[in-house]
Amino acid sequence: MKRFMDEDFLLSTETAQRLYHRYAAPMPILDYHCHISPREIYEDRGFDNITQVWLGGDHYKWRQMRSNGVEERYITGDAPDREKFQKWAQTLEMAIGNPLYHWSHLELRRYFGYEGWLTGETAQEVWDLCNARLRAGLTPRKMIQMSHVTLLCTTDDPADPLDWHQKIARDDSFPVQVLPTWRPDRAMHLEKEDYLRYLEILGQASGVEVDSFDALIRALRKRMDFFDSVGCKISDHGLAYIMYAPATEKTVEKIFKKRLAGGSLSPEEERQFKTALMLVLGKEYHQRGWAMQLHYGVKRDNNEKIFKELGPDAGIDCIYDHAPSADMTGLLNALAREDALPRTIIYPLNPADNAVVGTVIGCFQDSSVVGKIQQGSAWWFNDHRAGMEEQMISLANLGLLGNFIGMLTDSRSFLSYTRHEYFRRILCALIGGWVENGGYPADEKALERIIRGISYENAARYFGFKI
Amino acid sequence: MKRFMDEDFLLSTETAQRLYHRYAAPMPILDYHCHISPREIYEDRGFDNITQVWLGGDHYKWRQMRSNGVEERYITGDAPDREKFQKWAQTLEMAIGNPLYHWSHLELRRYFGYEGWLTGETAQEVWDLCNARLRAGLTPRKMIQMSHVTLLCTTDDPADPLDWHQKIARDDSFPVQVLPTWRPDRAMHLEKEDYLRYLEILGQASGVEVDSFDALIRALRKRMDFFDSVGCKISDHGLAYIMYAPATEKTVEKIFKKRLAGGSLSPEEERQFKTALMLVLGKEYHQRGWAMQLHYGVKRDNNEKIFKELGPDAGIDCIYDHAPSADMTGLLNALAREDALPRTIIYPLNPADNAVVGTVIGCFQDSSVVGKIQQGSAWWFNDHRAGMEEQMISLANLGLLGNFIGMLTDSRSFLSYTRHEYFRRILCALIGGWVENGGYPADEKALERIIRGISYENAARYFGFKI
Amino acid sequence: MKRFMDEDFLLSTETAQRLYHRYAAPMPILDYHCHISPREIYEDRGFDNITQVWLGGDHYKWRQMRSNGVEERYITGDAPDREKFQKWAQTLEMAIGNPLYHWSHLELRRYFGYEGWLTGETAQEVWDLCNARLRAGLTPRKMIQMSHVTLLCTTDDPADPLDWHQKIARDDSFPVQVLPTWRPDRAMHLEKEDYLRYLEILGQASGVEVDSFDALIRALRKRMDFFDSVGCKISDHGLAYIMYAPATEKTVEKIFKKRLAGGSLSPEEERQFKTALMLVLGKEYHQRGWAMQLHYGVKRDNNEKIFKELGPDAGIDCIYDHAPSADMTGLLNALAREDALPRTIIYPLNPADNAVVGTVIGCFQDSSVVGKIQQGSAWWFNDHRAGMEEQMISLANLGLLGNFIGMLTDSRSFLSYTRHEYFRRILCALIGGWVENGGYPADEKALERIIRGISYENAARYFGFKI
Repeated sequence: MKRFMDEDFLLSTETAQRLYHRYAAPMPILDYHCHISPREIYEDRGFDNITQVWLGGDHYKWRQMRSNGVEERYITGDAPDREKFQKWAQTLEMAIGNPLYHWSHLELRRYFGYEGWLTGETAQEVWDLCNARLRAGLTPRKMIQMSHVTLLCTTDDPADPLDWHQKIARDDSFPVQVLPTWRPDRAMHLEKEDYLRYLEILGQASGVEVDSFDALIRALRKRMDFFDSVGCKISDHGLAYIMYAPATEKTVEKIFKKRLAGGSLSPEEERQFKTALMLVLGKEYHQRGWAMQLHYGVKRDNNEKIFKELGPDAGIDCIYDHAPSADMTGLLNALAREDALPRTIIYPLNPADNAVVGTVIGCFQDSSVVGKIQQGSAWWFNDHRAGMEEQMISLANLGLLGNFIGMLTDSRSFLSYTRHEYFRRILCALIGGWVENGGYPADEKALERIIRGISYENAARYFGFKI
Repeated sequence: MKRFMDEDFLLSTETAQRLYHRYAAPMPILDYHCHISPREIYEDRGFDNITQVWLGGDHYKWRQMRSNGVEERYITGDAPDREKFQKWAQTLEMAIGNPLYHWSHLELRRYFGYEGWLTGETAQEVWDLCNARLRAGLTPRKMIQMSHVTLLCTTDDPADPLDWHQKIARDDSFPVQVLPTWRPDRAMHLEKEDYLRYLEILGQASGVEVDSFDALIRALRKRMDFFDSVGCKISDHGLAYIMYAPATEKTVEKIFKKRLAGGSLSPEEERQFKTALMLVLGKEYHQRGWAMQLHYGVKRDNNEKIFKELGPDAGIDCIYDHAPSADMTGLLNALAREDALPRTIIYPLNPADNAVVGTVIGCFQDSSVVGKIQQGSAWWFNDHRAGMEEQMISLANLGLLGNFIGMLTDSRSFLSYTRHEYFRRILCALIGGWVENGGYPADEKALERIIRGISYENAARYFGFKI
Repeated sequence: MKRFMDEDFLLSTETAQRLYHRYAAPMPILDYHCHISPREIYEDRGFDNITQVWLGGDHYKWRQMRSNGVEERYITGDAPDREKFQKWAQTLEMAIGNPLYHWSHLELRRYFGYEGWLTGETAQEVWDLCNARLRAGLTPRKMIQMSHVTLLCTTDDPADPLDWHQKIARDDSFPVQVLPTWRPDRAMHLEKEDYLRYLEILGQASGVEVDSFDALIRALRKRMDFFDSVGCKISDHGLAYIMYAPATEKTVEKIFKKRLAGGSLSPEEERQFKTALMLVLGKEYHQRGWAMQLHYGVKRDNNEKIFKELGPDAGIDCIYDHAPSADMTGLLNALAREDALPRTIIYPLNPADNAVVGTVIGCFQDSSVVGKIQQGSAWWFNDHRAGMEEQMISLANLGLLGNFIGMLTDSRSFLSYTRHEYFRRILCALIGGWVENGGYPADEKALERIIRGISYENAARYFGFKI
């Protein structure tokens, strides 16, 4: 029996252990998609206690506490931090097999040196230990640097002034590159109530009055130029599904004007607008050499009662299961036929879509970039051992695993870089197992190249970062 | 090599073996959902032979016999029981990897003491042995008590007089609680030809003439009160999918009146009626502290030729694969926003829905009950090793496995309690494997609590049974 | 650690090894579905080099080369064969875990005696070795006979004169049966531009002027008689999904006439026509004792740019994910209720449909044939270890694995018979594992029967071939 989460955690064969410790573990981290705040990095304020770090904004944990019957005041409410921590510790006992169990203990080990396990009974000693370390200077920048991060990409609205990114860039004391990512969801979601207010914000940021679809494009283009100047290389879209409903320019203008005038749109009009915007933006990304991330398959804010209290990102989202492959190929083809398809990374939230996406991406590869169209790493609800294995096995079966650009944290937390470790262990276990079973040669050079590539080098090359 | 189905069947690690034999095996059985007849329990008549027990109503077996090219007269027809048994034995030889292979042999071992395996050649000795045991007093009550069942819930129509339940309750010689479950499918399925006839039956049972939707609700409410008085704690719905098409009261009344008048309804009207009824019933369940089971994803009676001969439950059902998550969250949210969401257990028949359901339930948990919204145990076509593992791994990844209320037989047979054993072995194998691989601490106290909980105690607590 | 792809490749237990080497490996091959050219068999021309054999028409490989950023001229273009081979060898290095990695090396071992592995560095020695063997007489017929094929079925259009099949049949020097398969896709796909031209071709082949739906049926019937006379026993359909939209004869005639007149059809009209044709053809197959293969779930030719250059089968197809089970059962039921359902083999392309199909086939079994309705072997994008395991585990859980008719190549290549070896190894690993874990008795006679059945004998019996 292996000890609980020891140095060979998840690495069940000797080859897996060698691949991990020799090639994967030493690689730095390139976290090309996350949701941390550049301001918090710049300001680098410390934390009072582990509850602030762990429970402040982590809706993964909130959701599990609710599943354990914990009252909301101990989750997002005004209960004392120590009591919240107790409730979380008790919840974790029931979370056997959950990735939070592993993530939490990886964080305790790597950042706080705690080698035991968290329960209601050990909560006090963990509380004391973590808080002591936090007070001893474990700030955001320290966490990032301890994690060997060379570059990270935040997620930013087109109207964002990117001032914190620029301040970080000018700060020679912090060697990590912090780049913005272009995420124009608010410009896309014209069904939202506050859409017109957003257009004003965008108008101010860009200096373009957004009174037409054409003006919207001009405004976004100006902001893309600005993002580009601050080092942006990647865009990101959060979509219910990847839709394709082509319409004439005239129709799209009409739809947009109707929305500007406060009219309500049909589902088909909404689809047509979004398709038109995706097509324009896709071409822009292609021209600029940006990658296009498509995160799809989410139905958000499903519990109105909680939503009214807490707003979005409150742990009340689920998988949206309508995602016709015919639409997905329609959009990619419309860009490809004009030689305007950018590097594209598709992240399905529904694991039942793995094979669908794996077969779609293979239709649109070309010689402009190695592995141009990627299936993104197992995302959100799939970000666990089974999910990562399924994504990588599916990718290996349908495409070239060797060209996979690998892991990202997608996180709001400065401690979540251990997810890269988790991923690399699973990767090495998978490949090590294949080698031990005679399914791939014990060709050390080839294995080193593949493991280093997926851990770090493929992403660095794919996005064209200067590191 | 392990012997065929020995005491460590399915338990591939030492920890799995210890967990099973020490904690899981000794727990009694709480079978909170099945289809056995309370009358048969009360009357406790014996069986002439094993064919009556095994092939009398088991459409799982019928289906496989047809797959083996067996003629219908040996399945549901008038062939002699011994010949039917021979055909079944020969079919079983081809059923390698099928849960029926394991279930049948678990039943042979636990109830009849047969340690070999059933084939065309051993059929005669198995026939003789089983029949001798049956004639020696292996009656329904004996089977239930040998299985250490403390409580079981049958499945009953709202118009059912529940007289057999009451007789069993008054019979001091039988210590097992036999409670009714409220299953109002016939009141829901207004698309069926015999719906108006059913309304008459319901009207007679309730003393309410069902001449409006409002009257339907009043009739059902009276019957719920009655069910409650006989100890009912659980409702159950069989649905093609969990739908949500809200409509005004007036519209619903109009739809219902149209049906009463013999008119035919549009699919949308049918959806609106069913949604309205689910909303009313959900609130009633919540008020009464009943749990709401939603079994969805079935397309029934697909082979008209067999249906005309044999009627429903003849082994001709399949998975229905239209089940939008947007509808599922719509229904749950509509109840939750009025603080009227009961304990809910969702059972998808399509295993591709596991992750969808796992993410949906997490949106609606609250502090009124631990693990309030549950993903039900792998159901019907998924009731095998792979299906149970997938359900539990998915649940563990997306929620708190420790709070899972576990297994049920869903069966018409008095021998099927061995499915609980099958489930517990798979559970212990899964958790034991995690512990041995360093994925969960070898914390005996925590493991005992989790195993005992999932085997028995969680369900007892969740439903609030007095045992 | 096992050596790379040694004699026990994929066979991780002793029982698996014994079952494979003793029972599976010695069986000949019955390849009941492939796409090789009967003309190439008859003419038996040799190949100049391995690039011709491997890259000439294999869109599986093209797709992966594009994923590796290879320029089209090295894939389907005019680059020298040696350079194309180099690009393929380099691509293969990244294909860790991909079935092409295993298939390619199985082919190198079995047909060329190469025991190393192909990389950019070993490409020259592999090139030299393979080409020497090819020039030494490794012709199509030699490849087929080395593979112990007793019978193979090509895939043929109704208008095909089947002259090459007849020539092969008359050639006593070649003992392998080469039978045609009836694939009327061009008669079905009336949405295609060249449909009317095809009707002329069909008219000429049949001597029936196709000026009505009725005439279409007459023409097809005449061709079926002819196919039957040349030994055809199997039909095949390539479908986006299995649809069911019944319509009156009159309506169908009207739709067909509209198409003949050059009119464009609604999606519903298209569905109605296709349903009507499937129903007529299904009955014909039943009458003739032919099996009906339904390959569904493909969206073809998704990348217009490549399609314009290369036409169909260019590696730009993906999974089509709309496939309502209600339609599937509708079609099968419509045939079954008239006692006109032929032996049917359903191949879903979407692996998420495995369980759906597994439950559908069980509804339509009858005593006319053992295992009458089959779930086909893991197809195309699923033709890998995980896909085959999933298909067989699903089949075992939901039906009778022992009656499975097993593997086929579905290939355009004369080297792909090693896929039968790959399949048999996976089959024996699966069943051997069950036996070693105590899940099936170590009953050698039963295991021999099952392994030989699935490897060869079930298919021979199912289709009624005279071998």
